[in-house]
Amino acid sequence: MSNTPDTAVRAYIDAHRAAFLDDLAEWLRIPSVSADPARAADVRRSAQWLAAKLRETGFPTVEVWETGETGTDGAPGAPAVFAEWPSGEEDAPTVLVYGHHDVQPAAREDGWHTDPFEPTAVDGRLYARGAADDKGQVFFHTLGVRAHLAATGRTAPAVNLKLLIEGEEESGSPNFPALVHARADRLACDAVIVSDTGMWSEDTPTVCTGMRGLTDCQIDLYGPDQDIHSGSFGGAVPNPATEAARLAAALHDGDRRVAIPGFYDGIVELSEAERELFAELPFDEKRWLGAAHSHGALGEAGYSTLERVWARPTAEVNGIGGGYQGPGGKTIVPSTAQLKLSFRLVAGQDADRVQQSVRAWVAAALPEGIRHEVTFWGATRPCLTPLDHPALQSVVRAMGRAFGQKIRFTREGGSGPAADLQDALGAPVLFLGISVPSDGWHAPNEKVELDLLMKGVETAAYLWGDLAASGRTDRRPSP
Amino acid sequence: MSNTPDTAVRAYIDAHRAAFLDDLAEWLRIPSVSADPARAADVRRSAQWLAAKLRETGFPTVEVWETGETGTDGAPGAPAVFAEWPSGEEDAPTVLVYGHHDVQPAAREDGWHTDPFEPTAVDGRLYARGAADDKGQVFFHTLGVRAHLAATGRTAPAVNLKLLIEGEEESGSPNFPALVHARADRLACDAVIVSDTGMWSEDTPTVCTGMRGLTDCQIDLYGPDQDIHSGSFGGAVPNPATEAARLAAALHDGDRRVAIPGFYDGIVELSEAERELFAELPFDEKRWLGAAHSHGALGEAGYSTLERVWARPTAEVNGIGGGYQGPGGKTIVPSTAQLKLSFRLVAGQDADRVQQSVRAWVAAALPEGIRHEVTFWGATRPCLTPLDHPALQSVVRAMGRAFGQKIRFTREGGSGPAADLQDALGAPVLFLGISVPSDGWHAPNEKVELDLLMKGVETAAYLWGDLAASGRTDRRPSP
Repeated sequence: MSNTPDTAVRAYIDAHRAAFLDDLAEWLRIPSVSADPARAADVRRSAQWLAAKLRETGFPTVEVWETGETGTDGAPGAPAVFAEWPSGEEDAPTVLVYGHHDVQPAAREDGWHTDPFEPTAVDGRLYARGAADDKGQVFFHTLGVRAHLAATGRTAPAVNLKLLIEGEEESGSPNFPALVHARADRLACDAVIVSDTGMWSEDTPTVCTGMRGLTDCQIDLYGPDQDIHSGSFGGAVPNPATEAARLAAALHDGDRRVAIPGFYDGIVELSEAERELFAELPFDEKRWLGAAHSHGALGEAGYSTLERVWARPTAEVNGIGGGYQGPGGKTIVPSTAQLKLSFRLVAGQDADRVQQSVRAWVAAALPEGIRHEVTFWGATRPCLTPLDHPALQSVVRAMGRAFGQKIRFTREGGSGPAADLQDALGAPVLFLGISVPSDGWHAPNEKVELDLLMKGVETAAYLWGDLAASGRTDRRPSP
Repeated sequence: MSNTPDTAVRAYIDAHRAAFLDDLAEWLRIPSVSADPARAADVRRSAQWLAAKLRETGFPTVEVWETGETGTDGAPGAPAVFAEWPSGEEDAPTVLVYGHHDVQPAAREDGWHTDPFEPTAVDGRLYARGAADDKGQVFFHTLGVRAHLAATGRTAPAVNLKLLIEGEEESGSPNFPALVHARADRLACDAVIVSDTGMWSEDTPTVCTGMRGLTDCQIDLYGPDQDIHSGSFGGAVPNPATEAARLAAALHDGDRRVAIPGFYDGIVELSEAERELFAELPFDEKRWLGAAHSHGALGEAGYSTLERVWARPTAEVNGIGGGYQGPGGKTIVPSTAQLKLSFRLVAGQDADRVQQSVRAWVAAALPEGIRHEVTFWGATRPCLTPLDHPALQSVVRAMGRAFGQKIRFTREGGSGPAADLQDALGAPVLFLGISVPSDGWHAPNEKVELDLLMKGVETAAYLWGDLAASGRTDRRPSP
């Protein structure tokens, strides 16, 4: 299926590896911390640095897109970088690569062994804030596309290649959905490649096939108009703290299955094939519990831990509060209580319908004398690409050639802006990442494994040819 | 059964009413606020004023008892007043009257129409902080015993009369249990008369026959060692906020009956006779809900509101907390959660056994991966005097003569230091109070109804003769 000989790709990468790493180090020195207003100029400088590098790489169109300018009142957000390189061939599929150039805060005194903004290579690892999340994984596409051209003798990529590298991901992408919607025509594509995730481990290269969605809410319960004496009135009036607890407890049945009527309506169940693939992963529960800082595994009956976090929708109590929480006791029936819930969603679940189900369930559960309000904060849709999707198969083949190993499958339990791209562009979202759990995203001593980084370059070098060769990418959006 | 002719008692009271009220007003002018360290001297002055007045009344022994001096480190508490007037007759029963001379804080700007420490009589009501709670109800015993002597021609009461008037009740009686235990020999008695409660209403004089007990605790639950990401781990690890909610929800079954195994063991059930007596009271649920600031009645199936608050044990969530409680959402699985529970106890329930039941129930309910601690703050025992208890019958007869009406029965849902007396002295506790719900205890514009106050004097005047005549008081302690 490939039109790029492996030896040519490897030779090109080897020849340019040193310069590539020098360039990456230069970018990593820019402390593009989007959460810190004092670093706004650095975030802008990071965007401009990337734009210049993409022009140098050969992209004929490179633009720095301002964000957040929604009107005269709109505070500007951090700039994104857009680049486009048309294939020149009719019927070539169009691919959009997503990543981000902003980074998490980092300071030497947080426990870094080296300056987080002075990239340091030790034992085949490059330590720096952003090395894995996400500058390293964005940057492998630059050498990747050059290797693709060099090995195939092309002057333009085999696909119409677009890049959108945002500058606010570490700040919750506040302006990203608006940007994507406003620029949907420029971003139009047949598939989105998200390079902002990781693999199972160094030894087990994987492709992620989906992320869970999310909707979260606050439920406020109002009982007596003030805290009242539990001796004079307790046992004879409804207690909002008790009712909040009853709601939270009723979220799950005895099998820890979500008990809200209608919650599971329409979901895409895990296929037996996918369950078998998950089960093949070398999962070490003790190690996983260590990463979770937890002392026991507990969840929906009939599913493994990986299935629970990757492929099953959940209802989680993020916070509960009501009545007296200070030291000692206070014999009251509280006036109010509050519950914060989040629901992780899987493909097939509609956030609006879930929200309606939650509202109806709350209203039906509460006794007379308890008034309530339910406030949803928002929703991020789930995304999932079927295992047999042609574009996913291309990613798997490209990785397989780079790693020389069988590529396995994972999913991501969290929720992210990938779903905004899927929704706005109607294109399937694929994940290509080479980071591993030990890379320490958001933590001190973030690093990237240099060998894996070069595998990312190599995968990118194979991917465009494979996608073009395997025909016009299936435009089926995720379910 | 009485040896004090009603006309003589009434004539004596009428003749001394003006001087009695002048004296009471003088006492009420002393702002004996025990909660305010700046008023400590006033609390002491209040004790000394009362001691002098009791000597003037005729008590041969009057002592001001210091409290809280448990050693060189013990901070002194507020002084109590003890008085004793032996009957001089062999086999006369001994009665201990309990009340308190300290008052709640009060300031004109809280909404008082008059100075709270300048007693003001308007339309048959005396407005002042402490008018009903509790100086007025303590003070009616002074004129009461004098009227008893005058009408019977005695020079000493028909019973061995003791008074213990504490100075820290409004501060939670921190030193009272220790005081009572230390002075148990001086306080020894056949019955305790607590004059620190009220009646159903102006039109419905009642005697209270018991108070609920109390034990309360905090349950701390520990899950992950830190808050963790609900996307990466949610749905696959136990959540302490969910478990706290499940505990709180499991406190009650579908009938809102406490579901902790063993909780109801040994309780003295309401008799049919007492249920009928409660049902005769002119209970207005709408008005009661107004006093409870509540918008619905809810409690154990099969019991009326009054039965629920007076005679049924309860489990109440006083506070619950865990995870994120700030504005907006935060998608975490919390590390810890906390539950504050209080249990009101009725006669026959043993606080120690209840605490053991709660501990066992918590331990059995929690899944692996959730560590817990249960901390009980303490326990106040319930007290209950059977309707046919001879001393209770004396109180009912004395009130009946004073009020010229049928005396009905109530109980008190709260818990108080009366139980400490019952426990330390092994004597039944009886309640003689003439305050009514509109008196506004702890609120601005506290008052006492002067007609009811004089009925209190009159009841006290009849009581000692009735108790002595009806034979040595049954020493059966409350169950």
